[in-house]
Formats: sequence, structure tokens, C-alpha cells
Amino acid sequence: MNINDNYLNLEQSYLFPMIAKRVAEFKKNNPEKEVISLGIGDVTLPLPQVCVKALIKASQEMGQKETFRGYGPEQGYDFLLEAIINGDYKPLGINLSKEEVFVSDGAKCDVGNIQEILSVNNKVVICDPVYPVYLDTNIMAGREISKLICKAENNFVPQIPTEKADIIYLCSPNNPTGSVLTHKHLKEWVAYAKKNNSLIIFDSAYKEYIQDPTLPRSIYEIEGAKEVAIEIRSFSKTAGFTGLRCAYMVVPLELKGQSPKGLVSLNTLWRRRHTTKFNGVSYIVQRAAEAIYTQQGKKEIKEMISYYMQNAKIIKEELGKKFKVYGGENAPYIWLEVPCDSWQFFDELLNKCAVVGTPGSGFGEGGKGYFRLTAFGSRENTLKALERIKKL
Amino acid sequence: MNINDNYLNLEQSYLFPMIAKRVAEFKKNNPEKEVISLGIGDVTLPLPQVCVKALIKASQEMGQKETFRGYGPEQGYDFLLEAIINGDYKPLGINLSKEEVFVSDGAKCDVGNIQEILSVNNKVVICDPVYPVYLDTNIMAGREISKLICKAENNFVPQIPTEKADIIYLCSPNNPTGSVLTHKHLKEWVAYAKKNNSLIIFDSAYKEYIQDPTLPRSIYEIEGAKEVAIEIRSFSKTAGFTGLRCAYMVVPLELKGQSPKGLVSLNTLWRRRHTTKFNGVSYIVQRAAEAIYTQQGKKEIKEMISYYMQNAKIIKEELGKKFKVYGGENAPYIWLEVPCDSWQFFDELLNKCAVVGTPGSGFGEGGKGYFRLTAFGSRENTLKALERIKKL
Repeated sequence: MNINDNYLNLEQSYLFPMIAKRVAEFKKNNPEKEVISLGIGDVTLPLPQVCVKALIKASQEMGQKETFRGYGPEQGYDFLLEAIINGDYKPLGINLSKEEVFVSDGAKCDVGNIQEILSVNNKVVICDPVYPVYLDTNIMAGREISKLICKAENNFVPQIPTEKADIIYLCSPNNPTGSVLTHKHLKEWVAYAKKNNSLIIFDSAYKEYIQDPTLPRSIYEIEGAKEVAIEIRSFSKTAGFTGLRCAYMVVPLELKGQSPKGLVSLNTLWRRRHTTKFNGVSYIVQRAAEAIYTQQGKKEIKEMISYYMQNAKIIKEELGKKFKVYGGENAPYIWLEVPCDSWQFFDELLNKCAVVGTPGSGFGEGGKGYFRLTAFGSRENTLKALERIKKL
Repeated sequence: MNINDNYLNLEQSYLFPMIAKRVAEFKKNNPEKEVISLGIGDVTLPLPQVCVKALIKASQEMGQKETFRGYGPEQGYDFLLEAIINGDYKPLGINLSKEEVFVSDGAKCDVGNIQEILSVNNKVVICDPVYPVYLDTNIMAGREISKLICKAENNFVPQIPTEKADIIYLCSPNNPTGSVLTHKHLKEWVAYAKKNNSLIIFDSAYKEYIQDPTLPRSIYEIEGAKEVAIEIRSFSKTAGFTGLRCAYMVVPLELKGQSPKGLVSLNTLWRRRHTTKFNGVSYIVQRAAEAIYTQQGKKEIKEMISYYMQNAKIIKEELGKKFKVYGGENAPYIWLEVPCDSWQFFDELLNKCAVVGTPGSGFGEGGKGYFRLTAFGSRENTLKALERIKKL
């Protein structure tokens, strides 16, 4: 049998495994040193107690014949779909039906899987620097990819391209740069997509970190966006679900794609894909996600986000004394302009401070000379890391 | 943007949603009747208590800072990989390394996703009747598909084809026919695959239902199978995990695929795919899966399987008086030869007995005139359904 040759076009190694390898080597050679990671975007605070309670209750249900649940609806239980619609969209004045929301086990999965219903001949535009998954998954599928370099002079906001694109990935609040698209930016992108028959894949996994109340949380706040955009969100960073696994994707009924037989509903195609290749998210995890939308859940999450955003503020203030710093105000990422090559800075920080960050060049050409730190550490470790960097 | 036109080649509706629709209509028109489903292959017994305990313990860990876990290794935690290797393979004399086992959230997902690392130009051979996911996912990918009709005269065991195939799906114990491949059959298939450079995707999701100790549980019991076969397994039917979601796939290091640059390790390709598009199974679910391999876990599962297999025996004996019956001895599926069209029998059974089964024709041409019942009901419902069918 033949392999999918597109895989031969991938770079040798995915960014984070490569970091993990260097860190492992450092630890092996320096077993006495305490390494602090502000690198990979993983949370450190425990699950909200309201979620733990929901997990335990649902686990007990699963152990009783009367309340046991087997296969659930692939797109998610009604209780969670309703919580999402009422909790995340209604307050923004956005109406969605349950048919438009698909619960999944991760935004990373959705980013990759959604492509399956789209032609491999579509031209893709990807911002640069970028979350590597957008790029790698499109290389695996063999699509033509253009990079849209985001520059410091525009505060790393992607500028509307002059060329036509079929699919555009936008991430706001942005990973890795921490930039956020305003209503004005999004309006321009929606207009561009309408004009060019493009699909926007809008990743707002970090929307809960937006502090400025004037900034848009959802692309559907823009009129007409339902005709051009899919929105991907996750509970990973919203509620510390990185180890629990739950996310969702909105595929509006208005959204259509071209085919030799005329326009086709992307919602219908995705429903077919989702029900054929996926069996739903664990029932107990869906109950935990539902709990986030209770009054107690909202309170616990707010505290969690404030904690991380306080870290972001501390990092930004301290490193702002030495470096030019972006992000960190409406996003858990701090993006530093560094005075050397990104991997050189990575090695320097690791070897001299035992602090792990992420080299900006790992996110693409546009990230060269930059470095990403995250606000997801504990306060104690964040402060300790900053002390060490100060002495650098 | 353009859609993936291959989706236009799919049949209108996936089998089980179509059944659900007819049942919903029947219930609406007959609200007083109690419908018994022996249709979709979903379990009804609650989770083993040992799994519930593991879920609760792991949920509590997730709520404490000291024991919280965020992103885990995408391919699964070592504790589960080791439990699988030592529990499922060592007793069969099969040695696997942890690098060869990938934990996932479902066999259905694995069946579809594994194709991504394989060329769309590979010719696929699929048995017929067949689990519809093999077929639909390959149609979505646009592959050329040949059907290998499995006949009653061979006890529904697929016979080695004369033509060359690049990829072959084998399912044993079989869904829907309940047939099981012997060592002799598997040896023939492995020899065929070696001769033709084919890849066997061996789905043994129902291996725990094998009662006959002389039958193979794993394709790797056959010498040389690691060079030609991927094995897919699931905890759904083994331990009632249909609503919990956990499975695994073995991609041996020996397995190679062709490319313009020479032979490529499928294990390396799959690791890349798995780490790029997937973020691991929920930690708490992995702990529940681990618990299955404890002494208490093994005991509870054995009881669960016996319960279902006792149902299978009862169905087989009773319906054997009226119909020609296959399967049900080493598989939870009972495959009936019916005296009319499969959907006609479905409607008859639904309308006259309020019993739901699965029309054999839903599994392909080769299933026409057959009907699938499952042993996953409660004893009470199984007996009640048989009483009603008796009166038909």
C-alpha cells in the first residue's frame, strides 16, 4: 500500500515535542535544577470544584443500571448544547439553534477534522506567526498554503490580503502573539470573505481571556458572519479542561460551499462527517462542561481567568522593562521581541535560568526574533521565573 | 470555497439515524407501546464498579492542585499502555512496545482516521455485509472500493480474493454476521497481504466475546502479521464504555508503506497524525480503562460478557426454531436469514412486535435478506422481545 505522500512535506518535528526533547536533555544533565515551564500553553490550576462535583455525580450515574448512558448523540447532549447557546451566545445577541453546535473532544481535533468536508484544491491563507496545527494539518491534506505575515507595526493583526483565498484561519485572541481582532477588523474580514466566497475558520479558544468589554468575543457579532464563518471554541483554557477534553464548533445553517451540483450546506456535510467518524464526547465530561454555565461555575471560572491574567500582567510589566512586549492584556500569551534568534533565546533561557518558553520561530517565519511566554504557570513559579530572567 | 465532492457519493443517510427516525415515528404514532431495541449495538449494563471508583478517584485528583493533570501524552498515559500490553497481549505470547499502542476515543474514530496517512489512490477491499463506517469513510476519502461478498455457504467468512488489494478491512468477531476468523483464515490473509503488499486493518472490537479458546483474539497471533496489520480495539463492548469513550490501535514498528522516497514507517506517520490532530483521551477515562485490568476489573468484565453471551444463547436457541441463524456463539450479534426484504422485516418487527433490529441490507448487498439482533439488551427485554416475536 502507498502512504499519503503529503506527510513527506511536513517539517521533521512538531514544535512542542522538540521543546520537550531539549528540556528532557537539560533535566538529565542538570538533575539538581528546578525547571519552570512558561512554554506549552497548559493550565496549572485544578478543575473548578463545580466540575469535579458534576464528574463524580455523572460517574455514579454511569454505575447504576437506571441512570447508565451508552452512546450519546454524536453532536453532544441537548443539556450541553443548550447551556452553550444560552451561556455563550444569547448574551451577545447571537441566536443559534442546537443543530448548529457540535460538541467535540478538542479544538485541535476540530481544526484538523473540519478540513475533511472541504476540497483539497482550496487555497488556504494562514497567518504567520501561527498555531502550528493550522499549517501542519493543511500540509497533510496537500493544500496550497499562503502565509499572511503579521507584523509588529500592525500590532500583529493580520491585514486583508490582496489575493483571493478559499479558506482563512483567524485566531483571536491570538496564539502566539496575544493580539485581538476588533469589530472593525472582523467586519473587514467578513466583507473580504463574502466578496471572495471564502470560508473563515475562526478560532476563539481564548475568548474568555478578553478583558476589554468593547472587543468582540464571537465572529457572529458581525452581521453576515454566519454566511462565511465557522467558529471553534474550547473548554481547555476557559475552565482548565486540557486533561478532560471538551470543545465545540459552530457550523451555521447559512454556510454553503460550492460543488459541481451547486451549493451544499456545510452544516449537513459536517453532521455527516461528525456522526460517521466520531462517537461523541464522554457523557461525564459533558456534564462537567455543563456545570461551567451554572452561577457557581461562572464564578469559579472568573476567578481562574483573573488569576492567569494577573500573571500575564506581572510578566508584561516586568519584562516590559527589558524587552518590547506584545499581548498579555486580552490573552494569556506574552510575545517578546528578543535580541537574537528565537531558538538561541530558548537555549539561553533554559540553560541560564532553567525557564522554558516557546521560540517564536516555531510559529513560522513571522515569529523569528520573538518568543512566547504563557500566563498559565502558578503565581509562585511565574514570579520565580521572572526573578531568574531579571538576573540574565 | 469548494466542498469535498466525494461526500456527494455517499448514500443519503447513515444506517442508524435512519432506523432512529423510523422508531421515533412509530413511537409518536403508538405512544402506549413499549419499544424494545435489539438494534444498535449499544450496551445496557452499567459500568463496572471498579471503573466507577477509578473515575471518582481521578476526578478528585483533577480537583486538587497537587494531583491535577493537564495535557497528557497524546498516545495515552504509560499506565494504560502498560496495562494493555500486559493484559491483552502478553498472555497471547505477543510482545509489543509502548510506542506501538495508541489510545484513542473510539474504534469508529480510528477506523476513519487511520486512512489519513494512506494514499487516496490505494484500492480498498471491504467485506460485505459490513460495518458501514469502513465503507462511508473510504467514500468520503474518494478511494476505489471493491466489495468482497461473504456468503452463508462459507458461514460468512470472507474468502481470499483473486485480485490485488492495497487495504483490506477485516472484522473478527464480525459485526454484523457474528462470524469469527480462525488461525487458518488469518494465516491465509496474512500470506495474501505479504504477497500483495497489502495492509490489513483488523478490527477486533468484539474479541472479548470469543468463547472458544482455540480461536485467535489478535491477528498478531499469526507469524509475520506485524509486517502487514494494524489492529483496532475498543473498551466500548469489553467494559461498557460506549458512553465513556476509550479505545486503542496497534501500529507495529515493522509496518511499512510505499512512497516515492522509499518505504516509510506507518508507526511514525501515525504518531505524527495522532499528535498533531488529537490531544489524548480524558485522563479520568484512561484511569477507568486501567481499572479493567485489575483482578476485580477482570472479574466484573467476565460477568458482564457472560450476561450478554447468555442473551445471545437464548436468542439463538429461540429464533433457531423459526429461522436459519448465524453468529451468537463467539460474538454478541445474531444474524438471521429472513423470509423477505430486510427493511420489510424491520417494519414488520417494529409494527407488530414493537421490537427494533437492524436490517441486514443496511450492511450492504450481501446482507440483503438478513437481519441483525444484538445480545446487548437486558435479560428481561430480550426475553420479552422473543415472546413477542414467537407470536408473529
